[in-house]
Amino acid sequence: MMIDILGRYLPVLEWGRAYDRNALSNDVLAAVIVTIMLIPQSLAYALLAGLPPEAGIYASIAPILLYAVFGTSRALAVGPVAVVSLLTAAAIGEVAEQGTAGYVAAALTLAFLSGGFLVLMGVFRLGFLANFLSHPVIAGFITASGILIATSQVKHLLGVSAHGHTLPDMLGAILAHLDQVNWITLAIGGAATGFLFWVRTRLKPTLKRLGVPDLIADVFTKAGPVAAVIATTVAVWAFDLAGQGVKIVGAVPQSLPPLIRPSFAPDLVSALLMPAILISIIGFVESVSVAQTLAAKKRQRIDPDQELIGLGAANFGAAFTGGYPVTGGFARSAVNFDAGAQTPAAGAFTAIGLAFAAVALTPLVYYLPNATLAATIIVAVLSLVDVSILKKTWAYSRADFTAVAATILLTLGLGVEVGVASGVAISVLLHLYKTSRPHVAEVGLVPGTQHFRNVKRHEVETDPALLVLRVDESLYFVNARFLEDLVQNRVAQGCKIRNVVLMFSAVNEVDFSALESLETINHRLSDLGVGLHLSEVKGPVMDRLRRSHFIEALNGQVFLSQFDAWSALKTSPDAQAAE
Amino acid sequence: MMIDILGRYLPVLEWGRAYDRNALSNDVLAAVIVTIMLIPQSLAYALLAGLPPEAGIYASIAPILLYAVFGTSRALAVGPVAVVSLLTAAAIGEVAEQGTAGYVAAALTLAFLSGGFLVLMGVFRLGFLANFLSHPVIAGFITASGILIATSQVKHLLGVSAHGHTLPDMLGAILAHLDQVNWITLAIGGAATGFLFWVRTRLKPTLKRLGVPDLIADVFTKAGPVAAVIATTVAVWAFDLAGQGVKIVGAVPQSLPPLIRPSFAPDLVSALLMPAILISIIGFVESVSVAQTLAAKKRQRIDPDQELIGLGAANFGAAFTGGYPVTGGFARSAVNFDAGAQTPAAGAFTAIGLAFAAVALTPLVYYLPNATLAATIIVAVLSLVDVSILKKTWAYSRADFTAVAATILLTLGLGVEVGVASGVAISVLLHLYKTSRPHVAEVGLVPGTQHFRNVKRHEVETDPALLVLRVDESLYFVNARFLEDLVQNRVAQGCKIRNVVLMFSAVNEVDFSALESLETINHRLSDLGVGLHLSEVKGPVMDRLRRSHFIEALNGQVFLSQFDAWSALKTSPDAQAAE
Repeated sequence: MMIDILGRYLPVLEWGRAYDRNALSNDVLAAVIVTIMLIPQSLAYALLAGLPPEAGIYASIAPILLYAVFGTSRALAVGPVAVVSLLTAAAIGEVAEQGTAGYVAAALTLAFLSGGFLVLMGVFRLGFLANFLSHPVIAGFITASGILIATSQVKHLLGVSAHGHTLPDMLGAILAHLDQVNWITLAIGGAATGFLFWVRTRLKPTLKRLGVPDLIADVFTKAGPVAAVIATTVAVWAFDLAGQGVKIVGAVPQSLPPLIRPSFAPDLVSALLMPAILISIIGFVESVSVAQTLAAKKRQRIDPDQELIGLGAANFGAAFTGGYPVTGGFARSAVNFDAGAQTPAAGAFTAIGLAFAAVALTPLVYYLPNATLAATIIVAVLSLVDVSILKKTWAYSRADFTAVAATILLTLGLGVEVGVASGVAISVLLHLYKTSRPHVAEVGLVPGTQHFRNVKRHEVETDPALLVLRVDESLYFVNARFLEDLVQNRVAQGCKIRNVVLMFSAVNEVDFSALESLETINHRLSDLGVGLHLSEVKGPVMDRLRRSHFIEALNGQVFLSQFDAWSALKTSPDAQAAE
Repeated sequence: MMIDILGRYLPVLEWGRAYDRNALSNDVLAAVIVTIMLIPQSLAYALLAGLPPEAGIYASIAPILLYAVFGTSRALAVGPVAVVSLLTAAAIGEVAEQGTAGYVAAALTLAFLSGGFLVLMGVFRLGFLANFLSHPVIAGFITASGILIATSQVKHLLGVSAHGHTLPDMLGAILAHLDQVNWITLAIGGAATGFLFWVRTRLKPTLKRLGVPDLIADVFTKAGPVAAVIATTVAVWAFDLAGQGVKIVGAVPQSLPPLIRPSFAPDLVSALLMPAILISIIGFVESVSVAQTLAAKKRQRIDPDQELIGLGAANFGAAFTGGYPVTGGFARSAVNFDAGAQTPAAGAFTAIGLAFAAVALTPLVYYLPNATLAATIIVAVLSLVDVSILKKTWAYSRADFTAVAATILLTLGLGVEVGVASGVAISVLLHLYKTSRPHVAEVGLVPGTQHFRNVKRHEVETDPALLVLRVDESLYFVNARFLEDLVQNRVAQGCKIRNVVLMFSAVNEVDFSALESLETINHRLSDLGVGLHLSEVKGPVMDRLRRSHFIEALNGQVFLSQFDAWSALKTSPDAQAAE
């Protein structure tokens, strides 16, 4: 019992007991490949977040270890990711100046708040809240974020300084500084971008054509950014390009992640609370999507609520060790999975590799030009940009297209926070709008059967004194009044109508507003001497209706089947009128 | 054709052509009764809105005439109402001090903005937006408003000055001024309240017991406030009570409504825009509810979108003639209807009566004590307070109860604007939450039939290699991932499963998020060698699915009926496994 409860909150107890030599060798190999990929990526994402380079490495060590203990995915790799880095820069940019100690401290507070929110969501099992982000909104947001991120790095390629959190701001700032372009920086950045793009798209097929084994080709491809880093660092050092205005990473502290307490200053906390919630939800959605995709490939399960706790722990880890908000990333997790990682221990070995890098390799990146890191980011995020979603949603549904297009435009034009919030609001409103005018069919009997079909589509028997309406939607406040109006208008048109039957076969819910509308319909029809009946009411709906006085007050009957209703109420119109 | 289009926007053309002597006499009688009721009520609501008394009368003249031309309800009476007056006070209180010229001017701008918003909603046929206010939210909001309004008038009964827009603020302010109570004012106010309460609840039964005819009893009851006004005005004049600190209405300009242009100062407009939208929606909901109730009694129809235009025109009228935001009121419309009003001409005659009052009777209210008007308001709004809604929703549905309770508490505690906005947000969230975990039943064949029922409730045939899930909800972004997880977890548990059928008989919609989830399910099941099939897909849903590549990519089939699916896929598990 005890171990069950512990097992729920500490998945490590489950896989840890079955750990063997085979799993160990697979995990170590995956860790080596992931570490090689992560060193430049961590530095680059720190730059994107506006933080010193070591923050990116620190954010990859403690978080990975904590996720390995609390997380449920076997292959998820946790650390800084592009979109969260962008959100971090937007959030902290509101409260502190880049390059100041306050900026670095705010990142810790943000990670702490994000961790707290994730753990709270996990404890209260609120993982379903992430579902309020529809796929079109996520797709639009990720695409727009990719464009924003790539644009934000252009200044590093040009060697100019330019700030802004929206596309027009960024482009304006870049244009305003075009006269200050550092041509050597641009040459380095351009070459690195071209090289990385070539590695990403062409290297693997080329190597395979040359007969290089798959695994080796893979390692070469993943090592592309490392090669770019080494080549450009050596170039800057050899030709003293830093003296000619090429911006470099400079001194990075040579140490393990420090133990730091984040600031809880009330002003800071209240300013960062909403951004932290947003970062948590976006990060959780990204993480849980990739974790589920990978788990499904091996018929494994992940528990979204426990994932919240795993990611929350990882963010607490980042908050106390000089990092910034983290989550499970698409790219790094896929690499980890493809490289054969079997358990979260692979993550722990990656952490060891990065800790070694933090202690031993940091002096080597002194001459690394920022332009190379920018190139790494640009090439990485271009895979996020997917405008085909616009075409796909346009073909499928105008409502979904509207949600995508609005999310993209608002994210680019007004920034990430406004963009994603508006996207959610728009998709909720579109959903409410769609259900506000449910399909209601007037039905009649298919001759010779007990089936009832739409009078507009089929040859069916009807009775002028009997109106049968099949409601094809749950009834709730948004469409309650619609039904009221519909019945009233329909009855006002058909003077011979003596009985109305509402066929509830597709009604999964009747909320209090809809109940009151049904009562109103009943009163109005009673005043007119018209009977109101229900048919084919589902069990749970009927149970609920019985808790009110509606069934007692109903001036007609509730029929189990529509055919029963028809048999009981069908008469010649004159006989009814004479009643 | 032309007359049809004109007729749509000018309902007056329809009823005006059929107007006769009989309708005229009915309308005139109704107008006399309504006018008697409206004179004190208009003064009182102006006081509630913080405006000079004549604003209440002006707001009842031009608006009634304009509604008579553009509105579709035969019996609706338009003018100042309690809740809108309260909202007006809350909105203008933010931008100007009560008693200043700026305050009066802001009321005109507010009415203009409200009129503009209503007309826009009408032209774009957005009347359905009012449905986003659920019945529980409206009921909670009206109840809380009634309490706030009654409390706001207590200061007039006590003769103290106290401001505030929330219950704690108001009570605090009253308590802080308790030492300044004017005892003569309290005596007048207390007596008036007691008298009006007696008139409202006891007078009519008493008169009827004494054999007074119904119509006369009715007129006496409606004239109660007029009697209170006359008695207290005479008392104040006779004993010079104003000299002893009793606050009186004072000089009211003796004129027809003035023609004034509202201010369009950008600051004012931007500050009042959101309150104007809120007032418009609340006013529209109140008005359309009463109009529909009255229309239904005579099998008449109202057109909600044309109602928007009618109410918009009425507000424009208020904005240019020294009034403030108006709408169709419950009380005055019911009186108008009961008194026999047949056409909107009754409203026009009421306007003439009020215009006469504005010119001839205003000097007579000089000595009218504010406490009497406060008593009128308190007795009128107590009928709005209905806490039984709490009991009813508690019995019916916890979600609806939550929405009511939260709306009441937030309206009382944080004010009308926050209250109603939170109420809407809460009811939308509760709806999304309910549909986020749809009922999905695993079904099997009822032996000897072609029907499929829940395996947990019925004795049915199943096949360990075949999983049939009946989805009892439309699939959209909020529950898309739920289905993904459910199928994945279910398949991970049942290792013998070779085919999965999703039975779509109750699925009325599949949005793009749900489509992507279905694609994900299809990919994952394909990876596992499990077939995915659909059955009983509704026509419109199938049409939409065909616009995507899902049906082509589906690794199984789409069956018309679930029995077809069962017949095709049912086999012994071994035969399937050997495939």
